[in-house]
Amino acid sequence: MSAGTRGFPLQEYRTRVARAQTAMAAAGLDALLLTSEPDVRYFSGFLTRFWESPTRPWFLVVPASGDPVAVIPSIGASLMAQTWIQDIRSWRSPDLEDDGVSLLADTLREVAGERARIGLPMGAETSLRMPLADFKRLEAALSPVALVGDAGILRALRIVKSPAEIAKIETACRIADRAFARVGEIAGAGARLDEVARRFQMLCLEEGADWVPYLACPCGPDGYFDVISPADGHVFAPGDVLMLDTGLVHDGYFCDFDRNFSISAPSRDVRAAHRRLLEAVDAAMEIARPGVSAADLFHAMDAIVTGGQGGSDTGRLGHGLGTQLTEWPSLIPQDRTRIEAGMVLTLEPGIEVSPGRILVHEENIVIEADGARFLSTRADPEILCLERSA
Amino acid sequence: MSAGTRGFPLQEYRTRVARAQTAMAAAGLDALLLTSEPDVRYFSGFLTRFWESPTRPWFLVVPASGDPVAVIPSIGASLMAQTWIQDIRSWRSPDLEDDGVSLLADTLREVAGERARIGLPMGAETSLRMPLADFKRLEAALSPVALVGDAGILRALRIVKSPAEIAKIETACRIADRAFARVGEIAGAGARLDEVARRFQMLCLEEGADWVPYLACPCGPDGYFDVISPADGHVFAPGDVLMLDTGLVHDGYFCDFDRNFSISAPSRDVRAAHRRLLEAVDAAMEIARPGVSAADLFHAMDAIVTGGQGGSDTGRLGHGLGTQLTEWPSLIPQDRTRIEAGMVLTLEPGIEVSPGRILVHEENIVIEADGARFLSTRADPEILCLERSA
Repeated sequence: MSAGTRGFPLQEYRTRVARAQTAMAAAGLDALLLTSEPDVRYFSGFLTRFWESPTRPWFLVVPASGDPVAVIPSIGASLMAQTWIQDIRSWRSPDLEDDGVSLLADTLREVAGERARIGLPMGAETSLRMPLADFKRLEAALSPVALVGDAGILRALRIVKSPAEIAKIETACRIADRAFARVGEIAGAGARLDEVARRFQMLCLEEGADWVPYLACPCGPDGYFDVISPADGHVFAPGDVLMLDTGLVHDGYFCDFDRNFSISAPSRDVRAAHRRLLEAVDAAMEIARPGVSAADLFHAMDAIVTGGQGGSDTGRLGHGLGTQLTEWPSLIPQDRTRIEAGMVLTLEPGIEVSPGRILVHEENIVIEADGARFLSTRADPEILCLERSA
Repeated sequence: MSAGTRGFPLQEYRTRVARAQTAMAAAGLDALLLTSEPDVRYFSGFLTRFWESPTRPWFLVVPASGDPVAVIPSIGASLMAQTWIQDIRSWRSPDLEDDGVSLLADTLREVAGERARIGLPMGAETSLRMPLADFKRLEAALSPVALVGDAGILRALRIVKSPAEIAKIETACRIADRAFARVGEIAGAGARLDEVARRFQMLCLEEGADWVPYLACPCGPDGYFDVISPADGHVFAPGDVLMLDTGLVHDGYFCDFDRNFSISAPSRDVRAAHRRLLEAVDAAMEIARPGVSAADLFHAMDAIVTGGQGGSDTGRLGHGLGTQLTEWPSLIPQDRTRIEAGMVLTLEPGIEVSPGRILVHEENIVIEADGARFLSTRADPEILCLERSA
């Protein structure tokens, strides 16, 4: 059930740090300051679900040379000591007077110098995971040290996955594949949507997921009105289309794909729409390789699902994924990111069946040297049909 | 399985907004700007697991008078339209040039005026959920409008729960109670920790959890070395102590408590330590009522678990909970928050069994007019004992 080796060899982290340091030198940064779960984990391997608690800030400092320094609440010091990080500085948090700010400021000055430029991720799809008032205190305490953007370094590093990372995402996809293959055991006419949502999460766990951070399950006659609804007490009726979209985790890496199910026989429109979605996926797969752009993948799909109108209100037709459910790039006309080998992407075309009624299909792929490969098992163009559940 | 009514009556939201507006007037704030899941949901009722995707920012503006305004990605507009919020402004996100910043700035100026002071939560246990670079752009676009702290308004409102909120937390606690009562079905000597972690999450779902955002499961002989470790491949041996600490969700509200289990018969030290933990819980319950302070509850427990040494590296002996796994206040010597009726708290004493080996016990309580009441079913002082699993 728990396929695959856990964690990464030390060399993986050393390579990540070395790449960051090369990029930092080019950008004139004396250190990186990281506050978010995926960024801290990327360089340290620190893996815990405790980030669900918003109480305490956690910091990792990547210096211009040498190994990262962890500045963290003492509640996490034992677990951090099991990673490769040697320099762990901790304080007893929460501290209502000074929740790590002084310790962090001292560490940054020591590591980066009195006139440093310190980079933080502050661009699209990032956020600063510490109280804003404490960030202002940190800025004041560090002056004249400057806290600036990270020049896109974290994005550039994390957007391309190593073979070991890809293997973890593929394991997550296989787990979801197996769970989707068993939906007939839990759903059918007469079943309740919220109960199916619970049972589907149980299937994901039974098939080997470590946890199931994300599930959306919109449902409606001949399509659904959005893709982010939580489950309610809706009782399935013939003609309903159910979408299950899961982001489950294996060893800290996500899959993110969905499957659509027709309760009893689908209408002709639903059947056609579903086929069209798979056509769109195939069109993107045909061109997916290093050198095309994120926008190219968008247009390949959009030509099929809207006839090239430029998208819909869901806003994009796919995205990166990895240590987060969604990551850069975005498959939108604006995003000219050059696709590279090692990127893991979702292809996520949506189509309107009738006004206000949509279907969305999603697969996960990895870009390879001369093309792309499905990590999820590509769905059949014929929408799956569920009869009354056992 | 899905006990309790979903959502809240409209009056609940109107009361929340009215209280916020009274406090805003007192603090001289012309609007509140909210970016985090619990804050946006508190005033709108917008409930979705889509926040797991870090890509898009979401904004709710609470004006000095009148109803809140949602400024959100178009992917969420349909779902927001199902809440009581009428004024919904959306843009097609992600937008790499302007991801909602201009729309938000226009809205804030319209709602709050050209010389407004707009409050954001920026104190302890908060963070700003939008890219920092976009926040700086927003500040520049709004000048001379000032973005300042929220004067603790969100904390003051959210820290005291309504009867309807308490009922949801109690439902979550009952679900976890039932799951804990079934741990003997899945764990015992010879079982693997990671498989038990999966099976326990399945039990939580089977007993009615909507989802299981948090689980920690440290395990070791005669105690564990920390309380935030994820599950590994450890195989239970006689004498191991397993702690399962879960934060499961019912209709957007958390429980957060744990149970300890001895694999086969516990040692005398473990048995005594566990009794001591329940003694500490009972000591806190004895004094828990409106008018005492968070620190008083800390000292009542600390006197028993350390002899009054002032705590340990886990940093606190309990905390608030509600729409988040952990919320203010903190049961620490520093926190003089006055305990009030309607606060929901964890009592979470920890004790060292031997150097580096700890036990932590946790219960959930609600403060009432003349005392406190357990929301979790208080554990027996005798540690539970698991034999070989079936």
